[in-house]
Amino acid sequence: MASLSFIGAGPGHPDWLTLRAYHLLQQAQLVVYDALVSQQILQLVNPYASLIQVGKRSSQRGYHPTEIAQLLMNSYHQGNHTVRLKGGDVSIFARFYEEILPIHEACIPFEIVPGITTASGVCASLACALTHRSLASSVTFISAMEAISPFRWSKLISTSDTLVVYMPLANLPSLIDGYLQAGGHPETPILLVQWCSLDTQATLLGTISTINHQIQRHQFGPPSLAIIGEVTTLCIGST
Amino acid sequence: MASLSFIGAGPGHPDWLTLRAYHLLQQAQLVVYDALVSQQILQLVNPYASLIQVGKRSSQRGYHPTEIAQLLMNSYHQGNHTVRLKGGDVSIFARFYEEILPIHEACIPFEIVPGITTASGVCASLACALTHRSLASSVTFISAMEAISPFRWSKLISTSDTLVVYMPLANLPSLIDGYLQAGGHPETPILLVQWCSLDTQATLLGTISTINHQIQRHQFGPPSLAIIGEVTTLCIGST
Repeated sequence: MASLSFIGAGPGHPDWLTLRAYHLLQQAQLVVYDALVSQQILQLVNPYASLIQVGKRSSQRGYHPTEIAQLLMNSYHQGNHTVRLKGGDVSIFARFYEEILPIHEACIPFEIVPGITTASGVCASLACALTHRSLASSVTFISAMEAISPFRWSKLISTSDTLVVYMPLANLPSLIDGYLQAGGHPETPILLVQWCSLDTQATLLGTISTINHQIQRHQFGPPSLAIIGEVTTLCIGST
Repeated sequence: MASLSFIGAGPGHPDWLTLRAYHLLQQAQLVVYDALVSQQILQLVNPYASLIQVGKRSSQRGYHPTEIAQLLMNSYHQGNHTVRLKGGDVSIFARFYEEILPIHEACIPFEIVPGITTASGVCASLACALTHRSLASSVTFISAMEAISPFRWSKLISTSDTLVVYMPLANLPSLIDGYLQAGGHPETPILLVQWCSLDTQATLLGTISTINHQIQRHQFGPPSLAIIGEVTTLCIGST
């Protein structure tokens, strides 16, 4: 019997896939995945499954959400166990809602399997926390794919003790300018993590005033995540 | 050879445990767990393991973090595969840092395994998202175990499109008073979810002005989570 599942693949390491996600990838007949889903995760897919990469890659255009939904519905109607695989968790900056809506309107049943969001993965791999009894009573997740005005920065800074910035590198210089213009302290610690959970994981711990220079020196690139706030100074590293 | 692992158990359903967590629970010789870790998860533990519940339960006092750390270190020194199991994810309102610090200072190696945080679990089970291209460009996680001043509420409301409140019921009437005093709109939608991912899962969708009454009428209790914001109106429910 056909099935349709939206699955969060987590940051990349197969160990951090959920039991349900693993089971569904093993029985999948079609897997539609984003560019950032790791090769290690894709290797767990049923070897007889078809794989379609729909993420935007350099010069190629990405698929529109309605095209992806159509692809999934066609596969479902052909009787396939169909999986839509996204990096991280499906509920946080994954834009899955635009894909799910046409499927829901077509009355096609589906399942959603949550994934480890990259912020949780970073904390696990470095032994720090996003919240802390005396340092951080709240944490805000923002995406840097769009510009953040100094006005919005000033509210973010004064509200949340920990700020997690998804996809920070696309706009990092303007992010930092906005942060400083909004009155953010140049010595605020910031942690950047690239390729979280994979063998290629790399980290940079700096301050708002130094991080740009560090990124250039270390040729740091995407995929990465930034955590801003005092909690980053507590990283002790899993040993 | 002895080992020591801190594991996030996710919201409760065993299907949402990670592969690594499952593996470590299968080989554990001692599991030290919180009151809210589900029975279904505990049933996956190696049947020859000892289990110690350290969470606070009604009249009993809870263990202090340093006592828990000592328990874990003693077990490690006895040569056991030792697991510290927490509900949800270890990095979000789990207060694991106080437990880890003495272990780190004693130079005992440990591993951290992230878990699905309950907010992600709620979104997966109800088919909604915490962020949305046009409705919510940020999400803030707060805990209601401590009071939130109207001043802090006013910043939270004006900063983040989606607010996730962990453990909201302990202080809900005062939370709502603070939200309204801070200028929050009484018609703002709020979603409450109890026992996320388990057979006993229950949901209430209301507004800031109605939710208190609904909670009393439905005798809603902990463990639960609240999501405040327009994204809650998009829940379509997994079918």
